[in-house]
Amino acid sequence: MQVDMNISIATPITKLLGIKHPILLAPMDLVADGRLVAAVDAAGGFGILGGAYGDEKWIARELDVLAHAKTRFGVGFITWSLAKQPKVLDRALEHKPMAVMLSFGSPVPFIEHIKSTGALVICQVQSAALAREATAAGADILVAQGTEAGGHGASRGLITLVPEIVDLVQGGTPVVAAGGIADGRGLAAALMLGAAGVMMGTRFYASQEAAGAQAAKESIRKATGDDTLRSIVFDISRRNVWPAPFTGRCLRNTHLDRWFGHEIELLRHLDEESAKYLAARQAGDFDIAAVIAGEAAGLIHDIPSVQEIMDRVVHEASTLLARVIAT
Amino acid sequence: MQVDMNISIATPITKLLGIKHPILLAPMDLVADGRLVAAVDAAGGFGILGGAYGDEKWIARELDVLAHAKTRFGVGFITWSLAKQPKVLDRALEHKPMAVMLSFGSPVPFIEHIKSTGALVICQVQSAALAREATAAGADILVAQGTEAGGHGASRGLITLVPEIVDLVQGGTPVVAAGGIADGRGLAAALMLGAAGVMMGTRFYASQEAAGAQAAKESIRKATGDDTLRSIVFDISRRNVWPAPFTGRCLRNTHLDRWFGHEIELLRHLDEESAKYLAARQAGDFDIAAVIAGEAAGLIHDIPSVQEIMDRVVHEASTLLARVIAT
Repeated sequence: MQVDMNISIATPITKLLGIKHPILLAPMDLVADGRLVAAVDAAGGFGILGGAYGDEKWIARELDVLAHAKTRFGVGFITWSLAKQPKVLDRALEHKPMAVMLSFGSPVPFIEHIKSTGALVICQVQSAALAREATAAGADILVAQGTEAGGHGASRGLITLVPEIVDLVQGGTPVVAAGGIADGRGLAAALMLGAAGVMMGTRFYASQEAAGAQAAKESIRKATGDDTLRSIVFDISRRNVWPAPFTGRCLRNTHLDRWFGHEIELLRHLDEESAKYLAARQAGDFDIAAVIAGEAAGLIHDIPSVQEIMDRVVHEASTLLARVIAT
Repeated sequence: MQVDMNISIATPITKLLGIKHPILLAPMDLVADGRLVAAVDAAGGFGILGGAYGDEKWIARELDVLAHAKTRFGVGFITWSLAKQPKVLDRALEHKPMAVMLSFGSPVPFIEHIKSTGALVICQVQSAALAREATAAGADILVAQGTEAGGHGASRGLITLVPEIVDLVQGGTPVVAAGGIADGRGLAAALMLGAAGVMMGTRFYASQEAAGAQAAKESIRKATGDDTLRSIVFDISRRNVWPAPFTGRCLRNTHLDRWFGHEIELLRHLDEESAKYLAARQAGDFDIAAVIAGEAAGLIHDIPSVQEIMDRVVHEASTLLARVIAT
């Protein structure tokens, strides 16, 4: 890696994506919209649109925003959901994304098609086994996602997952570290583990440009890292339970504290509770509706612009990397 | 931090403990015996005897080994267990350990007494809340233990826990990173996160000097990081269930795969299963008895001497830290 003090950190991922800083925006469902993606691009990172379950209208609208902004961008999908409606992928590919990110499920059925359009394929993986599968299938970039991450994920911690996957690909595929990273310390640590860059979600959620409710952003700002839990409570509550081994991390609130560890009982009251949950989501009542955020919330104390976040992370990481006194 | 290429990495923890390398041996129950502690000391780290539940005979014998070897050493205890038999602490203090490490439970009842003998107090914490408690109680060193760790622990990932605790203590107490660290990449990453050093367990378990069965060491060598689970299965099986929120991580085996997620059923068959488990432990049958190891198993591929481990970790970390090209 090459550190240009306060200016840039060059790695294989900056070269491959043609970006200034090795920082990617996580494709957070609804939160990572066209505006946020464009802001991350303008600040020197790589933005990935939160295509999630493939809401066609939302994706078409946000892709239009990106077309007008003329930014380089990626589109992210939930793989097992995409498998039910593959035409959403074709619509997205018409907009010539630089990359498509596939998370949660086998990327095999989609990789060849995506690559044939010239787009790069980014595969998010949560274990060594999934990394092996994605590498064999031809992924251009692996995102190693630790259990610290907000939203859906699995159980392995980032500190072992990144170096194990780096060893596994033997320098062949760039590995990006995701989950729990919100500042320059996290970026510098990820680079030491062998990652070529980082992906940040929660940190960009608590930015001025993110498409989230102000109250949700404030909750992230106030939370410590102890205030999140990985569970299936919010998935049950919105009648959207995921295939194993994926669970969802969100901030603790009244609803989660009530039902965590009592999921069977929640299922028994599902009609009532899911109606209550839906109403709370629509009303922006985050005592009941989940704020989907990761453990990095404990490292976040403000809601600045994307440019400010990017400047800080890069400045802090390059200072740390340059501060080592070699004698 | 000051890196003397290939020779040493000086941090506040090396100064405080008077050691060459910022690497501590985790006080693994039965595995971290006098011989292993002495080997870590001889190689320039700091060894902590696995006092665990306070087996008086075992501790007395191992303290004698250390007295003969004239090594500097620490003694570690499970705090909630120590509270039931505090006199074990007095016996250990008679041997003038340089430090006492308290893990899992409130350190408050013990800290003043330990410090009055001149020993340092090392508190292992698994959350920001526990770090706050231990700091307020006067801990000299905090060990931030991530969920990746083998054996007992909690749910927070190391990548967020370390910087959050570093921020919390505001430079006042050195923070050591534990859980998931087995090589120089992990040490370098921990230093970037703001830690003053690392504690390693699983890596030293798979060493020539560790007091573990050869078959257990071989299981660690062969395992990937996907092959461990955090659960209460082995605690139930040996009739030793811990207070919340602590669970135990071990390698997956036939017994764990059978009962993980079926703990209530295991309780229903407890007489039979616990007898079987006890017999398997005595026979060294690791299809049933647990090999208590962490996710770092995926980074471990051999069973070298402690000196060899230490040399490699320090060499790799200093190379990584010095390799950054500042332009």
